[in-house]
Amino acid sequence: MTSLRGRGGVGRGPESRRGGEMAAEQDPEALAAARPLLTDLYQATMALGYWRARRAREQAEFELFFRGCPFGGAFALAAGLRDCVRFLRAFRLRDADVQFLASVLPPDTEPAFFEHLRGLDCSDVTVRALPEGSLAFPGVPLLQVCGPLLVVQLLETPLLCLVSYASLIATNAARLRLIAGPKKRLLEMGLRRAQGPDGGLTASTYSYLGGFDGSSNVLAGQLRGVPVAGTLAHSFITSFLGTEVPPNPMLAPAASQGPRVDLAACVEAWLDRVCAHLGLGVQEPHRGERAAFVAYALAFPRAFQGLLDTYSVQRSGLPNFLAVALALGELGYQAVGVRLDSGDLLQQAQEIRKIFRTISAQFQVPWLESVSITVSNNINEEELARLAQEGSEVNVIGIGTNVVTCPRQPSLGCVYKLVSVGGQPRMKLTEDPEKQTLPGSKAAFRLLGADGEAPPTPRGPSQVPRPPALFLAHTGSPLLDVLQLVDEPPPQAGQELRVWPRGAQEACTVRPAHVEPLLRLWVRRGQLCEPLPSLAESRAFAQLSLSRLSPEHKRLEQPAPYRVALSDKLRALVDRLCAGGPS
Amino acid sequence: MTSLRGRGGVGRGPESRRGGEMAAEQDPEALAAARPLLTDLYQATMALGYWRARRAREQAEFELFFRGCPFGGAFALAAGLRDCVRFLRAFRLRDADVQFLASVLPPDTEPAFFEHLRGLDCSDVTVRALPEGSLAFPGVPLLQVCGPLLVVQLLETPLLCLVSYASLIATNAARLRLIAGPKKRLLEMGLRRAQGPDGGLTASTYSYLGGFDGSSNVLAGQLRGVPVAGTLAHSFITSFLGTEVPPNPMLAPAASQGPRVDLAACVEAWLDRVCAHLGLGVQEPHRGERAAFVAYALAFPRAFQGLLDTYSVQRSGLPNFLAVALALGELGYQAVGVRLDSGDLLQQAQEIRKIFRTISAQFQVPWLESVSITVSNNINEEELARLAQEGSEVNVIGIGTNVVTCPRQPSLGCVYKLVSVGGQPRMKLTEDPEKQTLPGSKAAFRLLGADGEAPPTPRGPSQVPRPPALFLAHTGSPLLDVLQLVDEPPPQAGQELRVWPRGAQEACTVRPAHVEPLLRLWVRRGQLCEPLPSLAESRAFAQLSLSRLSPEHKRLEQPAPYRVALSDKLRALVDRLCAGGPS
Repeated sequence: MTSLRGRGGVGRGPESRRGGEMAAEQDPEALAAARPLLTDLYQATMALGYWRARRAREQAEFELFFRGCPFGGAFALAAGLRDCVRFLRAFRLRDADVQFLASVLPPDTEPAFFEHLRGLDCSDVTVRALPEGSLAFPGVPLLQVCGPLLVVQLLETPLLCLVSYASLIATNAARLRLIAGPKKRLLEMGLRRAQGPDGGLTASTYSYLGGFDGSSNVLAGQLRGVPVAGTLAHSFITSFLGTEVPPNPMLAPAASQGPRVDLAACVEAWLDRVCAHLGLGVQEPHRGERAAFVAYALAFPRAFQGLLDTYSVQRSGLPNFLAVALALGELGYQAVGVRLDSGDLLQQAQEIRKIFRTISAQFQVPWLESVSITVSNNINEEELARLAQEGSEVNVIGIGTNVVTCPRQPSLGCVYKLVSVGGQPRMKLTEDPEKQTLPGSKAAFRLLGADGEAPPTPRGPSQVPRPPALFLAHTGSPLLDVLQLVDEPPPQAGQELRVWPRGAQEACTVRPAHVEPLLRLWVRRGQLCEPLPSLAESRAFAQLSLSRLSPEHKRLEQPAPYRVALSDKLRALVDRLCAGGPS
Repeated sequence: MTSLRGRGGVGRGPESRRGGEMAAEQDPEALAAARPLLTDLYQATMALGYWRARRAREQAEFELFFRGCPFGGAFALAAGLRDCVRFLRAFRLRDADVQFLASVLPPDTEPAFFEHLRGLDCSDVTVRALPEGSLAFPGVPLLQVCGPLLVVQLLETPLLCLVSYASLIATNAARLRLIAGPKKRLLEMGLRRAQGPDGGLTASTYSYLGGFDGSSNVLAGQLRGVPVAGTLAHSFITSFLGTEVPPNPMLAPAASQGPRVDLAACVEAWLDRVCAHLGLGVQEPHRGERAAFVAYALAFPRAFQGLLDTYSVQRSGLPNFLAVALALGELGYQAVGVRLDSGDLLQQAQEIRKIFRTISAQFQVPWLESVSITVSNNINEEELARLAQEGSEVNVIGIGTNVVTCPRQPSLGCVYKLVSVGGQPRMKLTEDPEKQTLPGSKAAFRLLGADGEAPPTPRGPSQVPRPPALFLAHTGSPLLDVLQLVDEPPPQAGQELRVWPRGAQEACTVRPAHVEPLLRLWVRRGQLCEPLPSLAESRAFAQLSLSRLSPEHKRLEQPAPYRVALSDKLRALVDRLCAGGPS
């Protein structure tokens, strides 16, 4: 499977239309996957509770964040904002929705409550968020959602659903890209393995954001502008017996000059020469497979790819491919390459490349030695590392199940927590310290080092005390993220700052060379403040963000945790609310 | 979290409207999740290949099946048929779809091909399938899809996407139900953890089919008729400080006779008595939490549930709940119960039940001792087994991530393989024996034993030879499934039959007491042949099917594999095509 957007075909990528999200917004069906009732019933029962208590319109703020990085890593990528914005802008309960809610709420519920629901929209909702493709760390809000208590409560489930999986997939894709390195072409082809149709669409979209090159999913191309790729499956090959006569085997040369040629006959002639070179009997390659290749080559002379493993790679698929590729070559067409879907993919790729080289030399067809070798078949992180090793002849890697379902950790576990009501901070104090929340309206900053500066290493409960300090390491990397109350002055570049890393017992000081505010205002009272970046722009931003992260945090196994710290004032607020306890 | 359909509220279940799928079919938005372009690009390139080879209208048959049972078990439940039927009936490429395909196919593609695509529908497609809720085993088709080669090829990806995850979720839910036993109430509440919005909708629908009692997902209630449940979250509680005055704390008695009572004042009076009984200071229970409980009780006097762990279960949540429940009780309302979302759920449930009993006796409120205890918080199979153990006081168990994302195996890995074209059998011979397919149009039968009969035990490669025979064991259980060519006479009850179990070296004989045909004709040339069962009917059928399966196959860990066997004739066809090899 290889892209039709390459040399041999055409395609449509995000470059040609800004991110695809505008097209999707104009498409009423694209809204359907995120409908207002795609929520938990308790949001509706709480809505009634708030409304009865006359609190529906109180200003409230929620934060959406995760508690631990996925897959045993030390970073995540923020994603899903475009879907959230689309959802918020379309949010409105229709009559049928309200009627359904009425059918599951107590029969004596006041009609005025349902009138209130009918009038709801997000015109009073304000959203700050990490730009898509940003590095995200535990406890730092991916989204801050402010607005009337009843509405922002109702938004909890859909926003969690839209952000969690998108961010998980983008992070998973980014890990796979880190393993593959920048040169291998990575294709997502997991639609059939996805958890529901939209699981597939989301996976295709956000694996692209996370660093994949494209997807097999046509709908992701149509709705999101993801580059799409694909050629043929085993069923196409097994559907041919070889007894079928191609209705018109005549093919014009690539340059459109000169007479048409009977491709099927030309392939048979090449097969003799290929088999002689490979030491195979000319009867060995499967004639049905060859007929399928010829039929495909007639339909896609500029994008011919052979799927080699329907019968036998060495004794059938490869000689048939070579015969067709060489026949096409005579007419001035260059085949795209081959695909393998079973067996030891790396070893076969090495053997096939060797044969390409000898055939290329033998028949003086220079381009043939470098046609692409695509592989697929249950490729996970370990197998990908093997396929991407130095000297590997694999060019394109298709990944399905292991990118779309994230088997190592199929859920990011984001939460959406109330941090203030009416300007007053709120906190869940619970006896489970893991589940405590950070109160108050907050700002978040990323502190970056200068050239050759590394994160401070605060003392955790299990660590030997060490004076807080700055150590030399990498170039302008993020040092730590700071959460502070929204009315505190932002940290200043070059100025020393005392902060309280989460999970550590003591404060540490840090003098950032640069300071970046993390949360950006995207939606102010229902209005989009600036255009969202296109999907391709977010994809580029993700790669840039990752490139700046220092290797000890970027390591995929047993990385050093990246620190998130509280300002003095935020820390004091937490202490104050904890001390207040049950009052 | 507990159902509003219970004593304390109302709700809508599948009983009230046949499965909900009719409503969904009338809802254009419900179709959006499965659009014709939700497919892999290679289906479209192959379509062009077939069309150019003038093979588009050849009759072809595909089978959809899986190769191994999920989660280390020995069974799966078939599901997703209702979504497939909905998809097939709506299948039609719109102008925008065809235009998008034109944009990714070669620019010189003939316009007549796109005309052909515009005219496509499933009016020539015939589908046989296992009824939803059937036991399904490796290699036995869940779906057989016949029709014009081009169309049935295009259907591959969407059908795989719709069946695989639905069957996976149903199977996962069935396992959880087997662990929980019939009496615990199981609620799916994983929408926020699902892989995309539709992942959530699919999970809610098919976890119900697999044996759950309901879902928190309102959309699943609206579109699919799944019973929905839910009460309140921590944010509702933390939103109250206790300084708010409930606008109208007056509540009428349940019987609507007698004067209204100030519920808030009544709760304060009960709090004194409860605290005295529990040995707590009356200042200890959090007043904000109590205000939230009162507000919720005023909105849902007949469905009051306390979420206990926002601050401290024993020192705050529980006394506050008891004060509100006893105040409601004075007015004739019975609280629904409590929910716990952190800590040791089983131990807390035992402690809480003990307190319910003493309070119930102390204040002579008999119903209080048996109110329901609902638990949630990352419950997996192991924790569920603990919560469902003998003597557990837990009544309702909410499961999120571990039902919707199927972390133990997040993909079923179904495949869709060509088995015949123009009435001729086709087979993928590939060097990977795992990936070989079974050729030809087939029928499938389940052979059942009489009372006290067990499956035959054929000799596998690694087993000691043993004469094929029938052994005594369980009552009328399925013995094995037989695949045979469609024109063979069906197996007869009481007659001995020789079959070839897959993976075994030898044939065995079996004399079934009953024979059930497995594949049912649902769609004949695009027309639904009989109404699909409702979701609730399929759910009941799943439980019935499971109840008949013998314990050695139903065991969740290291079960005995259930045998699937080939008829003599099918086995001979496989041998013949294998011997032919590459020709």
